[in-house]
Amino acid sequence: MIKSPAEIVAIMMQNDAFSQWMDLTVEQISEGQCTLSCIVKEEMLNGFKILHGGISYSIADSALAFASNSYGNKCVSIETSISHTRPAKAGEKLTAVCREINRTRRFGLYEVIVSNETQKMVGYFKGTVNVSEEMW
Amino acid sequence: MIKSPAEIVAIMMQNDAFSQWMDLTVEQISEGQCTLSCIVKEEMLNGFKILHGGISYSIADSALAFASNSYGNKCVSIETSISHTRPAKAGEKLTAVCREINRTRRFGLYEVIVSNETQKMVGYFKGTVNVSEEMW
Amino acid sequence: MIKSPAEIVAIMMQNDAFSQWMDLTVEQISEGQCTLSCIVKEEMLNGFKILHGGISYSIADSALAFASNSYGNKCVSIETSISHTRPAKAGEKLTAVCREINRTRRFGLYEVIVSNETQKMVGYFKGTVNVSEEMW
Amino acid sequence: MIKSPAEIVAIMMQNDAFSQWMDLTVEQISEGQCTLSCIVKEEMLNGFKILHGGISYSIADSALAFASNSYGNKCVSIETSISHTRPAKAGEKLTAVCREINRTRRFGLYEVIVSNETQKMVGYFKGTVNVSEEMW
Repeated sequence: MIKSPAEIVAIMMQNDAFSQWMDLTVEQISEGQCTLSCIVKEEMLNGFKILHGGISYSIADSALAFASNSYGNKCVSIETSISHTRPAKAGEKLTAVCREINRTRRFGLYEVIVSNETQKMVGYFKGTVNVSEEMW
Repeated sequence: MIKSPAEIVAIMMQNDAFSQWMDLTVEQISEGQCTLSCIVKEEMLNGFKILHGGISYSIADSALAFASNSYGNKCVSIETSISHTRPAKAGEKLTAVCREINRTRRFGLYEVIVSNETQKMVGYFKGTVNVSEEMW
Repeated sequence: MIKSPAEIVAIMMQNDAFSQWMDLTVEQISEGQCTLSCIVKEEMLNGFKILHGGISYSIADSALAFASNSYGNKCVSIETSISHTRPAKAGEKLTAVCREINRTRRFGLYEVIVSNETQKMVGYFKGTVNVSEEMW
Repeated sequence: MIKSPAEIVAIMMQNDAFSQWMDLTVEQISEGQCTLSCIVKEEMLNGFKILHGGISYSIADSALAFASNSYGNKCVSIETSISHTRPAKAGEKLTAVCREINRTRRFGLYEVIVSNETQKMVGYFKGTVNVSEEMW
């Protein structure tokens, strides 16, 4: 029986220790799309006292994983990139919106825009995944 | 007085809460180069029970920050990318070696190879930084 | 006197031998945006008899140059990437639409979508430019 | 019968109209490696009278195609990026050296360094290919 996007993401989140550490909230999930949110914690800051680029990347990478896996086929990331466009501070709520740019039988291309509470872009992420034949 | 690479990285690490959470060890630091190591913790795993791509990215991004800032000028990342070439598991020791590909007065280009204990590549990272005139 | 986007692009195109070789047509130009079109010629094909990836890249790169320079400040590309999502054949008309993702005083981030006549995506390009203080 | 790297590249070059237009010379070819050279022609310049970024990309992309296909399996590029590190002028001889970073049964990761006659880096290219089961 084919699982729904929400069921697949529930399974993925249940076992995803790092997404849990970041305390990600799934705001929206459907085929090829996902919105996550997260509050910047003190432990997420770097030496400039702003959000470590690795956390913006991690939120975006989780959004990519959820959006691309939501069709039912297991997907694995091949190549990803991120531009850090604005700093974020402790206490800010970040939102990551993942959108599908292109999807073929074997590959998917996605963008994730990470924004702060005032809708300013904190990071712009692009990711390519390999679509396997293994189902959730 | 100009600070040494080791002094600069000590200051950066001292305030870098997330690098501390990852428990990064600075194995080597000199101008334009840096080697970090890290043990994969359970909290760093994703829903496939392998290392979350965001952690490989974060180790590499910290290596980029330390290597590029080590000359004395403050540097900020502009664009970064990573390919996740092999999975890593809890308990594995990872090593990230950052190497300078090109550096001009205003921009620096770096690669970071993240490897496991058997010298297999876990991730290949590339990063571009903007070199500011502000000194450490 | 500040030049208009159309004036700047006219100057750029006038001296751009390779854009002329590709026979690029500027369909639209305004601040931060540009649409170009081009017919795939036999000389643009690769060993698989499909459009050489370098030509899709070149069209997108020209669109990036025109869109980012259109404000009046000279801009130079720092980092660019492209995913080739579908093949294109000789005789097809391609359209490249460049859109601004983010722009600060010193950096600009753009995407370019290259499509064929049936609005299918041939390539997805992302580019970061450095905004200089030198004016056109 | 399995073809040698040189035989495969000869077939690819024979049909590659754009690589022929660029007048690429194959300096070296072996499994996973390739060196190409090219003289910058007037038609390859952009509006700044320097080499159009699309040509550096194209040389690198051809080097990627030859190096990755040389094992015998047909490979197609999935994602590529390039940083233009120095300008090049008409008449300069460029050399592109493609090196394999990682290769699995299904994916290959390569870098290409494009240099001028004084061994200065003109462009740094990274490319990911999909390895198919179809043979040359």
